[in-house]
Amino acid sequence: MSNLPVSGARLWDSLMQMARIGATPKGGNNRQTLTDGDGEARALLRDWAEAIGCSVTVDRVGNMAIRREGRDPSLPAVAMGSHLDTQPSGGRFDGVLGVLAGLEVLRALHESGTETEAPIVLVNWTNEEGARFSPPMMGSGVAMELFPETEVLAKTDPAGAVFGEELRRIGWQGKADPAALRSLGAYFELHIEQGPTLEAEGVPVGVVDRALAQLWLDVTVEGEESHGGSAMVPRRDALVGAALLVQVVEEAALAEGGRGTVGRLTVQPDSRNVVPSRVWFSIDFRHGEMEALARMEARIRDRAAEITAERGLKVELARFWECPLTPFSDELVAALERAAQGRNLPFKRMPTGIGHDAVYVARRLPTAMIFVPCEGGLSHNEAENITPEWAEAGLAVLADAVLATARPVRGD
Amino acid sequence: MSNLPVSGARLWDSLMQMARIGATPKGGNNRQTLTDGDGEARALLRDWAEAIGCSVTVDRVGNMAIRREGRDPSLPAVAMGSHLDTQPSGGRFDGVLGVLAGLEVLRALHESGTETEAPIVLVNWTNEEGARFSPPMMGSGVAMELFPETEVLAKTDPAGAVFGEELRRIGWQGKADPAALRSLGAYFELHIEQGPTLEAEGVPVGVVDRALAQLWLDVTVEGEESHGGSAMVPRRDALVGAALLVQVVEEAALAEGGRGTVGRLTVQPDSRNVVPSRVWFSIDFRHGEMEALARMEARIRDRAAEITAERGLKVELARFWECPLTPFSDELVAALERAAQGRNLPFKRMPTGIGHDAVYVARRLPTAMIFVPCEGGLSHNEAENITPEWAEAGLAVLADAVLATARPVRGD
Repeated sequence: MSNLPVSGARLWDSLMQMARIGATPKGGNNRQTLTDGDGEARALLRDWAEAIGCSVTVDRVGNMAIRREGRDPSLPAVAMGSHLDTQPSGGRFDGVLGVLAGLEVLRALHESGTETEAPIVLVNWTNEEGARFSPPMMGSGVAMELFPETEVLAKTDPAGAVFGEELRRIGWQGKADPAALRSLGAYFELHIEQGPTLEAEGVPVGVVDRALAQLWLDVTVEGEESHGGSAMVPRRDALVGAALLVQVVEEAALAEGGRGTVGRLTVQPDSRNVVPSRVWFSIDFRHGEMEALARMEARIRDRAAEITAERGLKVELARFWECPLTPFSDELVAALERAAQGRNLPFKRMPTGIGHDAVYVARRLPTAMIFVPCEGGLSHNEAENITPEWAEAGLAVLADAVLATARPVRGD
Repeated sequence: MSNLPVSGARLWDSLMQMARIGATPKGGNNRQTLTDGDGEARALLRDWAEAIGCSVTVDRVGNMAIRREGRDPSLPAVAMGSHLDTQPSGGRFDGVLGVLAGLEVLRALHESGTETEAPIVLVNWTNEEGARFSPPMMGSGVAMELFPETEVLAKTDPAGAVFGEELRRIGWQGKADPAALRSLGAYFELHIEQGPTLEAEGVPVGVVDRALAQLWLDVTVEGEESHGGSAMVPRRDALVGAALLVQVVEEAALAEGGRGTVGRLTVQPDSRNVVPSRVWFSIDFRHGEMEALARMEARIRDRAAEITAERGLKVELARFWECPLTPFSDELVAALERAAQGRNLPFKRMPTGIGHDAVYVARRLPTAMIFVPCEGGLSHNEAENITPEWAEAGLAVLADAVLATARPVRGD
């Protein structure tokens, strides 16, 4: 298999150039979707792409498709992509790394005169972050026909600005049908991990083989209000019951190797000297196997029943939102593993617990992701950081897997 | 020792008459301080008191002192008292029981022609509840010179009404100096327990020998925000750390026989899929011994240091408010015990964990309290309830202890 002669230094240089657009004082980026900064970033990407002979197509929700033709234009394209938009106080790599690594792959193909059987496409998806216009992953969601285009164009930001109008204002509403991106043949996305695992284990490459299933619950624990000066027995303190359950959420996640988070919790009547009568909290459970996710749910339900029975409390657990397991393509995952092996890069198969454009794309097309470490697992933060070596490792694996999938034309 | 021939039936009848003033649809009372209902209740009490030959003196903050002269008017009076004001959705017994049981003692003395050496005084303290004008226990606080009279008269309710003006409006600002009540010789207060202990143990009388010391803490746990999809290790989840500490609060209270309550807790950034970076909560610790209270504080501080060190969290525990232990009078407590024994009533020595007028009075004068059970420990609630038997038990102990302390004049 070929090792495409990509340049980590050139990728890094491009990342630092892009990071000047919307740069924040603390070294991060504020380049929220459909702002002037987003427009400027798109223009820079277009200029770079056209300089190496690629075509740039923009669809009606602003997704940019940068295409390098293959020897057989009728073959479905092999795609790469991610996003250039950021959080309000975002970093320089979340999303940007995947787009500019894709650009570097195109540059290396161009410079080395490498021809592929299949066309290669790099996608910059519109509004992955969802910070200004909610929900996130709008561009990929529309392209994969998960969101209606007209609804997305009518979304408003907190200041009342309309998505479609802002897209036209910055000059990035194209004429292409977003659904055209459903005819891609394969999709690879390189992204920072946004978690601490790879850095902690000293592994530079994560081969991401699925997106975790998610189950979000609403939990209400009811006890009885009593005075903070009243005796401890028999109290029916809803907060002590809830506190025990917060720990069960962690235990369930650790026991099953999933994730469990209580991100919100409220207490009633919320008075310093009154024993809480009612506590509400959220649970976010995630796992790479549906059976294990079901066991996590069973565990919290069982323990909730036990704890509340012991303490004279009542509990209600209601399903708030669910998202099924999204498996990635075995074939593309295998291509990534071969690419990492070919570069002698240690790698680790892992799921993504976080939403990415790839997770929506994977519902329709063969998809796989590559993760690289980020310092301290930090993202959505101006201090978000990676090393040039990590960027280069991800780039190399992306490049070789894309090339292998698009099949280089062999000289005779 | 004499058993004064008090009438439980007449007390109950008076309680039910008083409960008509400010009666609520659910069977409770809304007779907040300085409302028309408070004025009406005061007038009924005055009429009842004058009907049995007592004098009624009102001081400048509205405290009513109902006096039955002793053979030796120069002796310091033996006092009983509590309050007629209620919470907005209060019950029929909280405070009222102590006042009307005191009235029944005066009635029984009157009917039986019993003369005492010392005068006997029944006090209806103004604004014990603090629901309309904060803080609570204003009348006793001013009389015991814990609050400046002018500040109290200038307090406003949420609607902007001024305490002193409302007091005059309902016609209950008198001319007496509140500080005159500091010359009382002894003070007994009968009150419902506002907790479940006596009912649960089947004991009709609590002999209250002290008010618990209180220590209120502010606790802040800081971790690190991370995505709900990120791996569990290494997370720094401030809420799981705080949840462990909520249990330590309960453990510390149970281990030391005190009280521990977390009544308020807030989570940041308060998003379903974000691991909390910061949790704040309150602790209300109470104990009848200062050393034990100090051990409770040491326990939460030690465990907080351990738990946060294990989990990479930071914690800050700050003292928000403290109130010292308030011992009651050994002599008056002994008088209550003898009275209960004399009536063959089972009793239990216990502290009060809750503020009462008696707690302020005890800072200046010999004081003791009697508790009687209330159903389910419920108070500050329209469903607050007691049985006529419990009311009569408390009445009997109050009557006999007051009579013994005021010393009945023996016939020759």
